[in-house]
Amino acid sequence: MPRFRLDIEYDGSAYAGWQRQADLPTVQQAIEQAIAKFCGDVISLRGAGRTDAGVHATGQVAHADLAKAWTGDKVRDAVNAHLQMAGERVSILKATPVAEDFDARFSALGRHYLYRILNRRAPAALEAGKVWWVPKRLDAGAMHEAAAKLLGRHDFTTFRSTQCQAASPVRTLDRLDITRDGDLIEVRASARSFLHNQVRSMVGSLKRVGDGAWSAADLRAALDARDRAACGQVAPPDGLFLTKVDYPDV
Amino acid sequence: MPRFRLDIEYDGSAYAGWQRQADLPTVQQAIEQAIAKFCGDVISLRGAGRTDAGVHATGQVAHADLAKAWTGDKVRDAVNAHLQMAGERVSILKATPVAEDFDARFSALGRHYLYRILNRRAPAALEAGKVWWVPKRLDAGAMHEAAAKLLGRHDFTTFRSTQCQAASPVRTLDRLDITRDGDLIEVRASARSFLHNQVRSMVGSLKRVGDGAWSAADLRAALDARDRAACGQVAPPDGLFLTKVDYPDV
Repeated sequence: MPRFRLDIEYDGSAYAGWQRQADLPTVQQAIEQAIAKFCGDVISLRGAGRTDAGVHATGQVAHADLAKAWTGDKVRDAVNAHLQMAGERVSILKATPVAEDFDARFSALGRHYLYRILNRRAPAALEAGKVWWVPKRLDAGAMHEAAAKLLGRHDFTTFRSTQCQAASPVRTLDRLDITRDGDLIEVRASARSFLHNQVRSMVGSLKRVGDGAWSAADLRAALDARDRAACGQVAPPDGLFLTKVDYPDV
Repeated sequence: MPRFRLDIEYDGSAYAGWQRQADLPTVQQAIEQAIAKFCGDVISLRGAGRTDAGVHATGQVAHADLAKAWTGDKVRDAVNAHLQMAGERVSILKATPVAEDFDARFSALGRHYLYRILNRRAPAALEAGKVWWVPKRLDAGAMHEAAAKLLGRHDFTTFRSTQCQAASPVRTLDRLDITRDGDLIEVRASARSFLHNQVRSMVGSLKRVGDGAWSAADLRAALDARDRAACGQVAPPDGLFLTKVDYPDV
């Protein structure tokens, strides 16, 4: 069966996360239903990142096996038409025929996330649900310096949800950059893969550095503790975006 | 009574426009109610731009006369707290004590709008309600060149709603720039004041230039016709943002 790679954007506010659940609306289900309406194929989509409830994507990737060898443009436009008709906040940016051994989850070489903090006294109006509003002034420079303590290969137990199902808590963090543009602080995180809630846990602890509660050494001590209780607040899902997934050049 | 200037951000999707109406939610009413809850003052807010239903603002300005000489920070934080409690999508960015002769509407020297077009095959998911989705490829360079035909002092009857209440259809358009950044086309328009629906009417006609239906000369002929019927489609409110209002330095 012809396999298609789907590049996907969604507003996570409307969904209980990526992964199909029995009684809640999910992104996976929305796309699977749109595909069924388009061509009748009842499929199971596999995504590169199982984003949580409220988490957004500008570059989620999934693959689907369809019965017919449609063109990518046809799949994109037809699935989008059904998503629109159903009022979903999901959009297929690209659909590309790929080799049968392409696997959106297992072929992925890297995942990139963006976390957005709106750091101003006034609450978010236009960006509500798409940022974490932090009224207290944060020192983005101090956050960026401290973030370097988390780079590289570590046991990230401190920054991992107790519900994380990964076999190992060891991950290699390739990038953790913090920049400020006016009232907006952007955290960019890259790794081959992340643990459950890892980005939000790291951002919540970095916020403590930004508001002066923690030093960079405190952040490092939290990592070294390998203890979930050492983690700062877990940042809310609102500010998190899965922006890009890397695959080998074929 | 002490007068305050309010700088305001809002998500217009949730409102029937800026101006108070009998039975519909409006931005003006949301703020007036929050002020009443904060200090008991029943006031009538005057805004610089009476944005239509669905139109957003990152820099609307209004003024309010309150009974007491609060600090600006107190007004901003207290009004925001009540707006948040009421679930409004409105945020007071700044509140500033001003002289009694400051009038948000009549002291304004210039108004700046941004219009955003999402120009790609895939519908908007994350930016739904905040852009005009145009799937057909637009030539932003051609739009920018043609836009120059509208600059300066003209009778803008063609680009004015039939319901516009302004005494004269003559306005001076100071800026009309079109730029592309990836899939996003941004139109930036500045003038001392605009007619009702003028920006959306100009954008709708510029879109015709962008998709090849009109030449720059056609756009100029539409202006010269001084006839509402000569206008292209009126662009939807979704993409329009009031970004800034200019006042004399005091």
